[in-house]
Amino acid sequence: MAEKINLAEKLDGFSDLWAPRIVARYNDHEVRLVRVEGEFIWHKHDDTDELFLVIEGDLDIEFRDRTVSLKPGELIVVPRGIEHRPVARNGEAKLLLIDPKDMPNTGDEATATKAVEI
Amino acid sequence: MAEKINLAEKLDGFSDLWAPRIVARYNDHEVRLVRVEGEFIWHKHDDTDELFLVIEGDLDIEFRDRTVSLKPGELIVVPRGIEHRPVARNGEAKLLLIDPKDMPNTGDEATATKAVEI
Repeated sequence: MAEKINLAEKLDGFSDLWAPRIVARYNDHEVRLVRVEGEFIWHKHDDTDELFLVIEGDLDIEFRDRTVSLKPGELIVVPRGIEHRPVARNGEAKLLLIDPKDMPNTGDEATATKAVEI
Repeated sequence: MAEKINLAEKLDGFSDLWAPRIVARYNDHEVRLVRVEGEFIWHKHDDTDELFLVIEGDLDIEFRDRTVSLKPGELIVVPRGIEHRPVARNGEAKLLLIDPKDMPNTGDEATATKAVEI
């Protein structure tokens, strides 16, 4: 059954950082919400692009040669195989991500925080 | 090269209704923006789910047995094979859609308005 998802309400339902929640499934992908602050780790996803949409706050996506700064209502698709590091320098940011089903958020099962359904 | 997309700016760049624009590509999918008002047609997509995120305005997704009313910041994934009709009853609405590459917006090439890249 298709239900609507209110992004702000879902984001208010948890508070831990860098711990993605799955709020919907789309084909073989997961729509994830995550709260972030400070620096994530440098990583890449060899087999998939990754979509970031900023819902609240400021987010930098650092690449090895440049930084893209995003505000609410801005999105970026990081291409597969490209090293990147998300950083929220100005306090907490709230993001919508789209990733393939079961994809580890760090690109590596060993270091990943598993996305859980809410 | 991954560039940021400002959704509001992109939506301000065109004015025709029910004519999706492609603003990014994610794996084998297209991120589309569309401005809508009034009723679309009843249709379904047999081979794919469809993601709707409301950016501005109000959107109803009608199913044969119920209606889901969405406001900005709310999304829904319409499962494959399910008949639905998007309707914007309260003036214009602006939407982000995610659809497979080249998918016709009506589910049928004969009646579709082809999504074009901007």
